[in-house]
Amino acid sequence: MESTVPEPEKGVAPPPPPPPPTSPAGCFLYDIILRVLLFATTLVAVLVMVTSKQTEMTLVPQLQITMPVDAKFTQSPALVYFVAALSVACLYSIISALASFLAMSIRSHHTKTLLHFIFMDTLILAIVVAATGSAGAVAYVGLKGNSHTGWTKICNVYDTFCRHLAGSLAVSLATAILLIMLIMLSSHSLYSKIR
Amino acid sequence: MESTVPEPEKGVAPPPPPPPPTSPAGCFLYDIILRVLLFATTLVAVLVMVTSKQTEMTLVPQLQITMPVDAKFTQSPALVYFVAALSVACLYSIISALASFLAMSIRSHHTKTLLHFIFMDTLILAIVVAATGSAGAVAYVGLKGNSHTGWTKICNVYDTFCRHLAGSLAVSLATAILLIMLIMLSSHSLYSKIR
Repeated sequence: MESTVPEPEKGVAPPPPPPPPTSPAGCFLYDIILRVLLFATTLVAVLVMVTSKQTEMTLVPQLQITMPVDAKFTQSPALVYFVAALSVACLYSIISALASFLAMSIRSHHTKTLLHFIFMDTLILAIVVAATGSAGAVAYVGLKGNSHTGWTKICNVYDTFCRHLAGSLAVSLATAILLIMLIMLSSHSLYSKIR
Repeated sequence: MESTVPEPEKGVAPPPPPPPPTSPAGCFLYDIILRVLLFATTLVAVLVMVTSKQTEMTLVPQLQITMPVDAKFTQSPALVYFVAALSVACLYSIISALASFLAMSIRSHHTKTLLHFIFMDTLILAIVVAATGSAGAVAYVGLKGNSHTGWTKICNVYDTFCRHLAGSLAVSLATAILLIMLIMLSSHSLYSKIR
């Protein structure tokens, strides 16, 4: 009589482990999409700012004559800093998108990459937001003036220049929101690896 | 003949797991210290800014007479935003220090608390840095003026007012650095729980 005890089936694989709440590849896919958007917004903000030059016939008080006077971003240190900061963020978006793509391909050291992304994104966020704040403050004085200090508004004359400033500031605000979303995505991916 | 295969020793416990690189209580201790420093810097920045009022005898161009004229932070929207933003950060530092203290005492939900700290610290960092940038841009125009737009400098007359502004801006820069350190501490604590 043959034994009725079933032999263990050697060919059957153990049940697969439950999938993690957020797959690393999926997290890096969203990361790359956000970084490509970051590249687009920083590039647009820089281009709109550097093409803001406007020339108008203006009365020069010292000479008491009307002559063409330029308004361009290089005349204000705050706007020069804005262009420099957004250019740094644009360069960073290219490098970090490549790093994110590599991390998705290689499939190792994911957590360390996420940690470095949080560190670097925070620094770039601080640079971009400080630049947006300073350019915004100068643009606001240009728009409204300040009667207490005697600073006159210039946006009534240089309307195209101010419209470029406003557009660039709006896009850099979107840049800041994208960077905050990137920090939240990276930290949530780290968190979901613990649960 | 007895079997020579050694039996498994039932009484021996498995080797203890290696200790985590950063203990949660230690991480929250540094967190509380940084948040107390955050409270101090935000409070100092707000107090130095609101006590910056200075009155000087100034020639009023419209009336062609010399009379006492005030310089105070409420005359510039950028400086009002600075005071509001640093006050919010001051309030946040109290609430988050209490939350950190509770998390250290209760010893549960540490990782979720760290994640929430990263989210909130990032938002407060953005608010504080934008305020520092905008107040810094206005203070720079007050210090140097701008010959292109005809904005005259005021710091040659209102020296104490400008010194208060500079002090407040320096302390708010320290606030921003503290917030960046807090984000890095929280994210590194999350990371060290995975290894």
